[in-house]
Amino acid sequence: MTTSPLRVAVIGAGFMARAHSHAWRTAPRFFDLSRDPRLSVLVSREEARGQKAAHDWGWDSWSDDWRAVIERDDIDVVDICTPGDTHAEIAIAALGAGKHVLCEKPLANDPADAADMVAAADAAARQGIVAMCGYSYRRTPALASARRLIAEGALGTIRHVRAQYLQDWLSDADAPHTWRLDRASAGSGALGDIGAHSIDTAQWLTGERIEGVSAHLRTFVTSRPRRSAEVGLGGTGDLDAERLPVDVDDAAAFIAGFSGGALGVFEATRMALGHRNANRIEINGDRGSIAFDFERMNELEYYSEDDADDRRGFRTIQATDPAHPYAEAWWPTGHGLGYEHTFTHQVVDFVRSIDGTPEPPTFADAYQVQRVLAAVEESARDEGRYTRVR
Amino acid sequence: MTTSPLRVAVIGAGFMARAHSHAWRTAPRFFDLSRDPRLSVLVSREEARGQKAAHDWGWDSWSDDWRAVIERDDIDVVDICTPGDTHAEIAIAALGAGKHVLCEKPLANDPADAADMVAAADAAARQGIVAMCGYSYRRTPALASARRLIAEGALGTIRHVRAQYLQDWLSDADAPHTWRLDRASAGSGALGDIGAHSIDTAQWLTGERIEGVSAHLRTFVTSRPRRSAEVGLGGTGDLDAERLPVDVDDAAAFIAGFSGGALGVFEATRMALGHRNANRIEINGDRGSIAFDFERMNELEYYSEDDADDRRGFRTIQATDPAHPYAEAWWPTGHGLGYEHTFTHQVVDFVRSIDGTPEPPTFADAYQVQRVLAAVEESARDEGRYTRVR
Amino acid sequence: MTTSPLRVAVIGAGFMARAHSHAWRTAPRFFDLSRDPRLSVLVSREEARGQKAAHDWGWDSWSDDWRAVIERDDIDVVDICTPGDTHAEIAIAALGAGKHVLCEKPLANDPADAADMVAAADAAARQGIVAMCGYSYRRTPALASARRLIAEGALGTIRHVRAQYLQDWLSDADAPHTWRLDRASAGSGALGDIGAHSIDTAQWLTGERIEGVSAHLRTFVTSRPRRSAEVGLGGTGDLDAERLPVDVDDAAAFIAGFSGGALGVFEATRMALGHRNANRIEINGDRGSIAFDFERMNELEYYSEDDADDRRGFRTIQATDPAHPYAEAWWPTGHGLGYEHTFTHQVVDFVRSIDGTPEPPTFADAYQVQRVLAAVEESARDEGRYTRVR
Amino acid sequence: MTTSPLRVAVIGAGFMARAHSHAWRTAPRFFDLSRDPRLSVLVSREEARGQKAAHDWGWDSWSDDWRAVIERDDIDVVDICTPGDTHAEIAIAALGAGKHVLCEKPLANDPADAADMVAAADAAARQGIVAMCGYSYRRTPALASARRLIAEGALGTIRHVRAQYLQDWLSDADAPHTWRLDRASAGSGALGDIGAHSIDTAQWLTGERIEGVSAHLRTFVTSRPRRSAEVGLGGTGDLDAERLPVDVDDAAAFIAGFSGGALGVFEATRMALGHRNANRIEINGDRGSIAFDFERMNELEYYSEDDADDRRGFRTIQATDPAHPYAEAWWPTGHGLGYEHTFTHQVVDFVRSIDGTPEPPTFADAYQVQRVLAAVEESARDEGRYTRVR
Repeated sequence: MTTSPLRVAVIGAGFMARAHSHAWRTAPRFFDLSRDPRLSVLVSREEARGQKAAHDWGWDSWSDDWRAVIERDDIDVVDICTPGDTHAEIAIAALGAGKHVLCEKPLANDPADAADMVAAADAAARQGIVAMCGYSYRRTPALASARRLIAEGALGTIRHVRAQYLQDWLSDADAPHTWRLDRASAGSGALGDIGAHSIDTAQWLTGERIEGVSAHLRTFVTSRPRRSAEVGLGGTGDLDAERLPVDVDDAAAFIAGFSGGALGVFEATRMALGHRNANRIEINGDRGSIAFDFERMNELEYYSEDDADDRRGFRTIQATDPAHPYAEAWWPTGHGLGYEHTFTHQVVDFVRSIDGTPEPPTFADAYQVQRVLAAVEESARDEGRYTRVR
Repeated sequence: MTTSPLRVAVIGAGFMARAHSHAWRTAPRFFDLSRDPRLSVLVSREEARGQKAAHDWGWDSWSDDWRAVIERDDIDVVDICTPGDTHAEIAIAALGAGKHVLCEKPLANDPADAADMVAAADAAARQGIVAMCGYSYRRTPALASARRLIAEGALGTIRHVRAQYLQDWLSDADAPHTWRLDRASAGSGALGDIGAHSIDTAQWLTGERIEGVSAHLRTFVTSRPRRSAEVGLGGTGDLDAERLPVDVDDAAAFIAGFSGGALGVFEATRMALGHRNANRIEINGDRGSIAFDFERMNELEYYSEDDADDRRGFRTIQATDPAHPYAEAWWPTGHGLGYEHTFTHQVVDFVRSIDGTPEPPTFADAYQVQRVLAAVEESARDEGRYTRVR
Repeated sequence: MTTSPLRVAVIGAGFMARAHSHAWRTAPRFFDLSRDPRLSVLVSREEARGQKAAHDWGWDSWSDDWRAVIERDDIDVVDICTPGDTHAEIAIAALGAGKHVLCEKPLANDPADAADMVAAADAAARQGIVAMCGYSYRRTPALASARRLIAEGALGTIRHVRAQYLQDWLSDADAPHTWRLDRASAGSGALGDIGAHSIDTAQWLTGERIEGVSAHLRTFVTSRPRRSAEVGLGGTGDLDAERLPVDVDDAAAFIAGFSGGALGVFEATRMALGHRNANRIEINGDRGSIAFDFERMNELEYYSEDDADDRRGFRTIQATDPAHPYAEAWWPTGHGLGYEHTFTHQVVDFVRSIDGTPEPPTFADAYQVQRVLAAVEESARDEGRYTRVR
Repeated sequence: MTTSPLRVAVIGAGFMARAHSHAWRTAPRFFDLSRDPRLSVLVSREEARGQKAAHDWGWDSWSDDWRAVIERDDIDVVDICTPGDTHAEIAIAALGAGKHVLCEKPLANDPADAADMVAAADAAARQGIVAMCGYSYRRTPALASARRLIAEGALGTIRHVRAQYLQDWLSDADAPHTWRLDRASAGSGALGDIGAHSIDTAQWLTGERIEGVSAHLRTFVTSRPRRSAEVGLGGTGDLDAERLPVDVDDAAAFIAGFSGGALGVFEATRMALGHRNANRIEINGDRGSIAFDFERMNELEYYSEDDADDRRGFRTIQATDPAHPYAEAWWPTGHGLGYEHTFTHQVVDFVRSIDGTPEPPTFADAYQVQRVLAAVEESARDEGRYTRVR
């Protein structure tokens, strides 16, 4: 089997770029892909960091000039792993240059930018160019199974969506400042960083849109020590005596109305002490329910009202069976997958999209998430009053 | 040891009255009480039902006239287990007659009634008469342990309260109508029935008050079949073709601000399919966290940031040790308690209050819960806008 | 409804007698019984303790002479809650006197005694007299549900039985000596105390007998401080400097062959630090599996191979539904039961046996358990060689 | 940083070879290694399968002649992923040729072969040549953390080891025959395939040796349909009408005595319906306990008797913190790892061994496991009589 190469440029050298690098390298080793990804160039403004990342993660080269890279004939895919404030400019340029684009979430910090990106993606689509947003949790086998169950009607009419994304890495008031706490770079705090995942997951699983929200945001720690050198999420480095202001939310809570009538309750926080990455969602319909927690990402809880009275209960399904999405490519049943597999599956679906089988989330899907985020912020400014997603 | 009898009248013949009957009968068998409860009279309007209940549950006699019972000299305690719309009249009369009053929650359907009850309780207190409201979940050893941990400062500053009370007995759209679905009798739906427990538990555990809320209510099933004869919660009976309107909420969701700055997220529903009685609460502070689910009522989850880096995690504490409140009176460690024990402990605390060691919740505490419920309803009518508890 | 009284004498004043007292008192309040239990007399050799127990637990009177009590015309039931070395003498006498007998496990310390008890029970049965042994865990709704599932064939052919009874109250080498550590009184250690429960549960659930065993016993702490006054399991009292020898096992492990071909693995220990009362059993068949842990006694885990490939998993069933044995008599679904309920259910089944619907375990069933225990001890003496149950 | 290449040959093209391929490719991307692994050649007897495997998994070339490969100067490491009956010949030859050897478990089907391998490894060690056996579960961060806790004394004196390795892929009596069911290839059944992991883990965690065992083996299904073409573990292929005999155990159970006095209970089965890969171990000491289940491989349960009375319980530790072995190289805390990571970590430790920091398990360690397996089989033939490990 000979496959034509798919030459990739990744923009960024942080935690996300590392995860994507692993995915590009690994996907063809476990899945039959029509195109063989080639890790051509890693782009980062900082030379030392970029050079090291390119070397460590297996990229052929490093560049500090994303505009030049986008113009190269020998690049097929631009994979954007930078902070949200830069997405629009890069993605629109790359799509304009005829590159397929995989863009990390959030699509853009500003909804207007996101709208422009959707327009660019639509225009590019007419040329057969693919644009996908990186809501990678969709690629978790357990959640993809849940999606299939719901699409089949196993839950009946959806009444409740209950989503929590609980982390605790900011619980310590002296944890250092990062770009994720800076509104200009990150757009928002827990809301856009992790709450956005919950919104995307909830809308995708239910097949319904959030129509409006009542929201409150909270910042518990309003300044944090500057770190001498940024070393990525969770890094430590030396701390300055100087404290930088935090101008984003530490926590977000909102109640949501769904297009099909379901009532949603969402919470995102980076201060839920004891929870490292509890990306949880539960959905109750009138025929069944599902529940999921990313801290046990290989398990799906499923309840069916069709079971007999004396033997009904949430089933703990190990989503590692060949019957579960993505799972057959890996190990025998019961041998679980990890966080990074979601990115590997994302590459698989991205390549399939290039092949002509479009896989969401489109930029339009991601734009919808941004509009929910905007409604959340608007409602929070308006004392929680129900605010329609526009 | 000779103890003077404590002569009790219970008003009601439903599920709650049965639980209280068991508690009055059982408490002196496991705890040293200064007064020996005597199950004197059960009051119920319906003769057949009342007679049978009195006999089955071990009461000396039955009466259909609560006013007459309240005037009897040989009654010391009036235990009110009727729907919420009747509480104020009975409780105020009983307190006026010099009886100690244990009143089921909600204190009253109407906040004005509740205020009157508080005044009556205050007046009675000056005569040494006790009034307590039946938020019995406080008597769960695991939760009482959590209260102690928090009071000691083990959680530090509280940032998050996350409370869900999930049931599913109304999930079936053809489940029969009951008084709990009638606003005139019940006051509200899931909100007052089960959400009230979450509110009381949250305020008691944190030692903080809810200051305001943003809320939404939802009624998914707006009419239900009439049952030929009411046979209590969960009963079946024959169903009429006729459907009665449901004028209370099936589900309530609200975001709350606490007096100490914590952000609360509350949800109460009787349509979370798969959950029978998941009365859950989690509290995150900056030093530790606790989590509880009544479906595993003998367990408390506790996380301490003081544990070393490589051995930190939620501890599953079996709250059945002599070191846990109430537990020593029962069985060896590890031999769990059940739902009804909370009522038995309530009797113990009620008797101790009569002895002169007041145990909350007072009527004033319960009135505060009612005011939160009122704020929730007001906010829900005002599109979720943040509404202060008055 | 008038019921003739069932006049009960309980022999013993320890932890078990307390549990039985509660059960006799409580059963008629929640179940329709043909006979109304009357707590007539509590028998204990020690006057102070017996008087107090009789008073506290609601018995009409106290006696120190079980022989006299057994001869009384106004006693219908003798309920034996003493250490195992005394069971045979009391039970045989009581059955001979025409009393129904409920005898705590183990049936007898000595298999020959147990055989005599079976003979006495058989003779009494011909007079309509009932004898039951107190393997109360059978009355747990979750386990009774499991029994029903297995009897219906939901598990198919049984291949594996995996039973652990893990406690830790002897983990501390300075925990005080008790009669449970004295071979003359207790017969054996963890083996007979808790392992016997596992054996009974396993044989009852599977409907198969253990045919032979390979066993090892272990005593980790060979002497313990004498307690000035015995105050029951878990009690503390003052400790003497003197240490008494421990001549029973702290832990027992054995591999068992079942009559239907299943392979059993059993472990009983009072030194599994962190486990308070983890009475666990799992059974795997070729169509399904069940698992249970008494520390979560209201839950049954059930796996069915009949579920579809992508939605198979252990179901966590809350065995609190009217569809589960015993549960309908209690609270709404999801409101769990506790340890003591197993004894209340035992009283219900005992009274039904008197009514003519025999409920196991018979003395013969309990004798079979004793023979397994004897085979375990014999195998342990013979270096673990497979020893047939005789 | 320039690193000299470490040129690897893998022998085998099955499930294990695939896992090892991923590990060699991935380790240098996440860990700083002194030598850069090069996937030089994959050896497999079957050309089509070998060619495809080499291509898919990223090997430079394929060979069908392991002897020739072993003699090549441009090979530094021989990684043996073939069935156990071939290990001795290949490993001894490779060590003799001066290659570092990583050999999958079991070390050898025959203890005499294993002894020869130990001798060869000892001789090679004097030339600076490394030999390691692939007990990869040791590289699970949660288990490596447990090892560290125990080595520090956090559990005190070990009393109980309780290990179960439960799978269910042979539960269906018509699941196809594979080489794992053939004694000549596999040595034994569940015992050597998965029970060997439990033995290694138990000895490594406790730092104690198993001195003797009482064992029983069981084969529930004695013949299985031939599969037209072998397609690896879990593969399906077409089934022949012909059935091949199964001459290995489906399940193994044994009781073990440890050198430090602990009592071990072990069970390994591929017929525990509902369990996919439940590699479980629990260890109880007199100061603390740990418990682990590979189905939740990112979690370690830890109990400490040092915690206060009212807040003691098993802690669920997410072993994904920088404080846990291997974890810092990966993702932020709470983003879990999968099965394959254990192999990646094994490569890291293997390279460190080549660097001069020997990491167990040595061939001698693995030989000890084989001797335990031999004792188990001997005891099983001798009706479970306690058999010393020789």
